Amino acid sequence: MSAYDELMAFQRETSALGQIAGRLGWDQETVMPRGAAPQRAEEMAAIEAVLHARRSDPRVAEWLEQADPQDDAARAQLRDIRRTYERTVKVPADLAKAIARVTSAAQGTWAQARADEDVAAFLPVLTEVVALKREEGAALAQGGDVYDAMVEDYEPYTTGAQISEIFDQMRPRLVALRAAVLEKPAPQVLAGKFDELTQMRLSQKLATTFGYDLNTGRMDKAVHPFSSGSGLDVRITTRTSETDPFNCFYSTIHEVGHAAYEQGIDLAYALTPLGQGVSMGVHESQSRIYENQLGRSRAFTGWLYDQMIDAFGEFGISDPDAFYATVNGVHNGYIRTEADEVQYNLHIMLRFDLERALMSGDLNVNDLETAWNDRFKADFGYAIDKPSNGCLQDVHWSVGLFGYFPTYSLGNVYAGCLHQALRAAVPDLDAQLATGDTSGATGWLRENLQRHGGLYTPRETIQRACGMQAGPEPFLSYLEEKFGALYGL
Amino acid sequence: MSAYDELMAFQRETSALGQIAGRLGWDQETVMPRGAAPQRAEEMAAIEAVLHARRSDPRVAEWLEQADPQDDAARAQLRDIRRTYERTVKVPADLAKAIARVTSAAQGTWAQARADEDVAAFLPVLTEVVALKREEGAALAQGGDVYDAMVEDYEPYTTGAQISEIFDQMRPRLVALRAAVLEKPAPQVLAGKFDELTQMRLSQKLATTFGYDLNTGRMDKAVHPFSSGSGLDVRITTRTSETDPFNCFYSTIHEVGHAAYEQGIDLAYALTPLGQGVSMGVHESQSRIYENQLGRSRAFTGWLYDQMIDAFGEFGISDPDAFYATVNGVHNGYIRTEADEVQYNLHIMLRFDLERALMSGDLNVNDLETAWNDRFKADFGYAIDKPSNGCLQDVHWSVGLFGYFPTYSLGNVYAGCLHQALRAAVPDLDAQLATGDTSGATGWLRENLQRHGGLYTPRETIQRACGMQAGPEPFLSYLEEKFGALYGL
Repeated sequence: MSAYDELMAFQRETSALGQIAGRLGWDQETVMPRGAAPQRAEEMAAIEAVLHARRSDPRVAEWLEQADPQDDAARAQLRDIRRTYERTVKVPADLAKAIARVTSAAQGTWAQARADEDVAAFLPVLTEVVALKREEGAALAQGGDVYDAMVEDYEPYTTGAQISEIFDQMRPRLVALRAAVLEKPAPQVLAGKFDELTQMRLSQKLATTFGYDLNTGRMDKAVHPFSSGSGLDVRITTRTSETDPFNCFYSTIHEVGHAAYEQGIDLAYALTPLGQGVSMGVHESQSRIYENQLGRSRAFTGWLYDQMIDAFGEFGISDPDAFYATVNGVHNGYIRTEADEVQYNLHIMLRFDLERALMSGDLNVNDLETAWNDRFKADFGYAIDKPSNGCLQDVHWSVGLFGYFPTYSLGNVYAGCLHQALRAAVPDLDAQLATGDTSGATGWLRENLQRHGGLYTPRETIQRACGMQAGPEPFLSYLEEKFGALYGL
Repeated sequence: MSAYDELMAFQRETSALGQIAGRLGWDQETVMPRGAAPQRAEEMAAIEAVLHARRSDPRVAEWLEQADPQDDAARAQLRDIRRTYERTVKVPADLAKAIARVTSAAQGTWAQARADEDVAAFLPVLTEVVALKREEGAALAQGGDVYDAMVEDYEPYTTGAQISEIFDQMRPRLVALRAAVLEKPAPQVLAGKFDELTQMRLSQKLATTFGYDLNTGRMDKAVHPFSSGSGLDVRITTRTSETDPFNCFYSTIHEVGHAAYEQGIDLAYALTPLGQGVSMGVHESQSRIYENQLGRSRAFTGWLYDQMIDAFGEFGISDPDAFYATVNGVHNGYIRTEADEVQYNLHIMLRFDLERALMSGDLNVNDLETAWNDRFKADFGYAIDKPSNGCLQDVHWSVGLFGYFPTYSLGNVYAGCLHQALRAAVPDLDAQLATGDTSGATGWLRENLQRHGGLYTPRETIQRACGMQAGPEPFLSYLEEKFGALYGL
């Protein structure tokens, strides 16, 4: 066997073990007995230790040195394996263990602090997490920017400065759009109760309507919906609320976007580094374009309106136009995960600036709540009323996810670019969506983006699909046009 | 850290990884998407390779040499780790891989051959499996008996000759009892349909009635019921048939017997070699005593009769005595898994003699069908009508499980011994069972057997619980008494 073949055989097993670790996560959030938690923590630690040892195995360095890649795919595999190897060996094993231990405990402390509305109870452990993550960032950055090194984990080849530049273009226009929209009368909101079993049934129809393949997937309920797995085993979860069926439907479509990406990757890459979505940002572009540009379009909501009438009977919204307005209603709120298309990215920018300042040392953990509340007031115009609506609302920092938040907004930006290109490529898209036919859109995304998996870098991936450099303009124009029309601006 | 502590830390991770591999098996049989099968095979192979490497890690030999155990539990841990290590290093890696590959394919061939009633289609791959297993047995036995080496995998410290001696005592009395019972009029059989959701609900009640802890377990449906996992995550499955609720209820009680054993083990042994059932035979003793000596007793079936009336209304059986006779009906049949207490072990003895002859080379695979059919005719008095009722009925040999079958009967023998001791220790057992209270029985089993896990050898485990050497006499007397009374012999 050649060095390349030996490396790839080794890597294939590593990928398979990675899939197993992911499936344990799925199990934990869906079916695991409650009392199994302490044992599960040890099981996760054991398989993570195996994965860590394999990712930093000295043979990988030797194989990388000797490997002679014969084509672009092989070169991309090596690029990815090298990135992972170099990243893994840079972080001292003791530091990696300390981070795992502290973040595992911090998650519980955070949940309790949020329940108790007690920021002070969370600060000591967050201080520890921030210190350890800064240490990790310094080890990774080797003199470079600590925050950039964190972003690399989720959005390779992308820097904090690049993100900052994009956000600087977005923020004033989003603040202005939000203000204009909220001056107008709010659309009707959904009232009444919607049978949860019927929600799940329609949800399953939505999933397959958007191309999710249940032969290599399955749908379950979870407290926080997610998608998990690659290749031939890609599972999604959703949730139901008796009074809010949109939460169920759009969670489902969102997770189907993630899952369809994984299911759409060329199976030749399965169980290799290229056999999964290339970055969190590109992943989010798929979930967002499915959910928003397609799922919340006037054309598709017209079809969904009929489905809901069929499933639930009359539910108090008089016609498809009113339904479209209800689906896209913009309302004041505090919570990122509940935010609409107009406001969502303002939540992200707030977090981006704060976490970057935490990593640089410009912001002390003890000043976090004040900084959060001040910034929120400035962008949203009203004060945070309680910590669970403010700096305690997200789990991310407690588990050490710094550099992750901006990928949500990059996803929206990428979705805007893809949507513009898709409209040009499929002129009768609305006519298709109006009949519940997403195949023109999802087929285009699969062909032009999803099937490549990790073959190209994230930006190249978007650029090849769209035929242009990714930037925020298409997304901002889309928002201004859509909500301008909806709200008569 | 001492060598012992280092070894145990290493072992703890290995046990955690073993639990993960087991949970992948659970996932496959309950929730896995159908189309995920090929990827799952690679995932299983990857984690099995990790486990194999750890079990044969040269450091284990060094630690074993240096370890200085301080108590009985530590000595038992080392005994178990040494057994596993020595077994693993004796089998060449290439042979282990060949067995994994061939048995994986053979299982599919067997399923197709069974569906087609085509023995000839199965024989070539079974010939391969038998040859590889004999090679493995020879490597393990190192000049000793090949079949004994196979039995060691499932029932440590037990030989084919010991089993043979027990079976020789059992067979004539079982043949005689069967003949006498079948001469008598058969009891009423169940008729009508039983709602499957109601079966599952009553099944869950039965599970908790027998002490199954759903906080560290869960119940799902599977084609072939099984129990899986140790420590804080022990899951069971059952099945439903609209016309046969007993299948559901007694599958559940059987699997709860296995699961209660795992849940009953001292948590100090969790994620160590001692933290699981000590052998297949002792495991089966728990599932069998729960299912039969307790669950099919006159006292408990009286309670179950009332539960069924409550759940399903009148169902055509006039009173608890008639119900007891129906539950314990002995009828002609071909299939091991459907056999009653009287006939079950005759099925096992047939397989034991045939597989022992296959392993010794006395029986050629091509003569297997004839040998099976001749033996069946001799023991049961009528001819096999089709291969799926004969030598193609069990999956075991296709997946390389030779030496496993006798542990089912050892379980029955052990259950007989335990039942005798239990009756002596809990004189009012029937009064308890008649009210659906199993705590006297299950508490005694937990205290005297289950909590020890792998601390003692299988035979010691039974001997300590019963206060006597395990032998077939109590089981045979129990059967003759129970069915003698039921059938008026």
